[in-house]
Amino acid sequence: MFMKKKGQGRTAARLIAALVALVAALVGTDARAQDPLPSWNDGASKARIVAFVRGVTDAGGKDFVPAEDRIAVFDNDGTLWSEQPMYFQLAFAIDRAKGMVARRPELAQSPAMRAAAAGDVKALAATGERGVVELVAITHANTTADEFAGIVRDWVRTARHPVTGRPYTEMTFAPMRELLDYLRANGFRTYIVSGGGVEFLRVISRELYGVPPEQVVGSTIKSRYEVRDGRPVIVRLPEVDFVNDKAGKPIGIQKFIGKRPIAAFGNSDGDFEMLEWVTTGNAAALGLIVRHDDAEREYAYDRQSRVGRLSRGLDEAPQRGWTVVSMKRDWKLVYPPAR
Amino acid sequence: MFMKKKGQGRTAARLIAALVALVAALVGTDARAQDPLPSWNDGASKARIVAFVRGVTDAGGKDFVPAEDRIAVFDNDGTLWSEQPMYFQLAFAIDRAKGMVARRPELAQSPAMRAAAAGDVKALAATGERGVVELVAITHANTTADEFAGIVRDWVRTARHPVTGRPYTEMTFAPMRELLDYLRANGFRTYIVSGGGVEFLRVISRELYGVPPEQVVGSTIKSRYEVRDGRPVIVRLPEVDFVNDKAGKPIGIQKFIGKRPIAAFGNSDGDFEMLEWVTTGNAAALGLIVRHDDAEREYAYDRQSRVGRLSRGLDEAPQRGWTVVSMKRDWKLVYPPAR
Repeated sequence: MFMKKKGQGRTAARLIAALVALVAALVGTDARAQDPLPSWNDGASKARIVAFVRGVTDAGGKDFVPAEDRIAVFDNDGTLWSEQPMYFQLAFAIDRAKGMVARRPELAQSPAMRAAAAGDVKALAATGERGVVELVAITHANTTADEFAGIVRDWVRTARHPVTGRPYTEMTFAPMRELLDYLRANGFRTYIVSGGGVEFLRVISRELYGVPPEQVVGSTIKSRYEVRDGRPVIVRLPEVDFVNDKAGKPIGIQKFIGKRPIAAFGNSDGDFEMLEWVTTGNAAALGLIVRHDDAEREYAYDRQSRVGRLSRGLDEAPQRGWTVVSMKRDWKLVYPPAR
Repeated sequence: MFMKKKGQGRTAARLIAALVALVAALVGTDARAQDPLPSWNDGASKARIVAFVRGVTDAGGKDFVPAEDRIAVFDNDGTLWSEQPMYFQLAFAIDRAKGMVARRPELAQSPAMRAAAAGDVKALAATGERGVVELVAITHANTTADEFAGIVRDWVRTARHPVTGRPYTEMTFAPMRELLDYLRANGFRTYIVSGGGVEFLRVISRELYGVPPEQVVGSTIKSRYEVRDGRPVIVRLPEVDFVNDKAGKPIGIQKFIGKRPIAAFGNSDGDFEMLEWVTTGNAAALGLIVRHDDAEREYAYDRQSRVGRLSRGLDEAPQRGWTVVSMKRDWKLVYPPAR
């Protein structure tokens, strides 16, 4: 046994108290430790999320998953930010079409470009899928990758949502951003797996969601490597390479990440296969659908909607054990407070 | 000013000494701290690597790069492990062709499959690029992604290199594995960017190099999502999706990682564009070529070789500031000691 002097014991106790205070400060406040999801109302959805995270991080438990395999995938449009009255990337394409046609009127020979430049969404819709693909090809290609990133950055800074008048970047869902943080604090790597264009999303993913570019999986167009005056550039070509939607989402996950995630978050039937792939890979996996049922604070739509239709997902969620989040009931707030 | 009792001072000093010892233990031995690359001989190559790492990690210096942007990309064949007398993945395809033709003789109708099954590498080469693509398509497709990973795992466990008789997994270059560790210890994320198949490499990348599946970029074949008896699977199709070689490497980097790395390591002209892309992106970036000039311990080949030809890279390395590593002169050992 060691003999202790009274003074030594007191000093050690003080040092330990200081260390405890330091650790507490690093870990966060008591309140935060008690409620990792303060923007979520108490209820089944929140309880399910917390139980899932506790299960996979409990080193002694039957559902434990090592940190290296804790991968969570999030759809973007309608899951992390709004998608009405149209996908925000389509709003970008329309704005860009306006600028391009103003500079080069001959581009209006394309009916889709003409409709977009006139801001006529109905006429644009009438051009069908072929028209929209053409619009995306013209507005998203024939620049270098660096130039395109700059164009997106400029648009994001200046564009405003037609209904709320807020920057699109303020129309992310506060409870979902909290959820991203909560998962990362528990050793998860969080990926965005979107039908949107990967090089559009990568410009904003870190600022909006804390997700670095290499953790964004999305649709791609082809590109070409070229050396111009001794400087290499990557030129974006007007040709679709890969559509990361529906059954394309598990394909994209396998291609880019190469392992099966243990949590998937979506809001439409475009996310069905991703949820299916993830929740059949591990008995403890979490599948979660954000249901837009809050016409007052956001939008209310599901089975009949053209954008973000949710039908099969609603039908099968109970038997598949997927959690359906009601924005109206489960979320204390939708968007972050205006800055 | 605080008044200190003698006993308190002694206790604090002991605690601090214990903490220092703990930190030293965590950081590593003194010897290791002095030489992070013990398998490298002292000389210009090693000095260049160390100077690069010190520069980009020096928070006050002009070349500082924040940890999130410290991305290093490594070619695999000929850079991280040997590639003679043939790419190891081709040896896998040949072994697999043997097994497949034994079970299903009708597969020998393909000249490439027939040559491979007979172990006749010359006849296989005579089938040309079309033949090799056909061989890869047949031996790498028509399984699920999970089944394919199992097939690769089995092969890696049993196959032996025709010349050394060692498992292929022991034919990685010890100095390069050390370099991977050294970069990671300095906040880098290390990626493999290979012309080889991504789903082949991902099976072994963690064990061989400490690189997780999501940090492997490679060539891909197409695949299809399918639900079989209620269980989803990803089926590999006999169709090339993307060839991650030559100008495909910067394209693959942009597609999978979405930002420009600051260090690139290769060994052949197939890595030229990757090195060019990386070293023109940041004035401090490191480009390094492993030159196979050690016929005694490994192989000696460059300008005239069919596998791993290195010609333009050698010509332009000096003016581009790329470091050419001589395996013979710069490496204390090539392979790790036999287990």
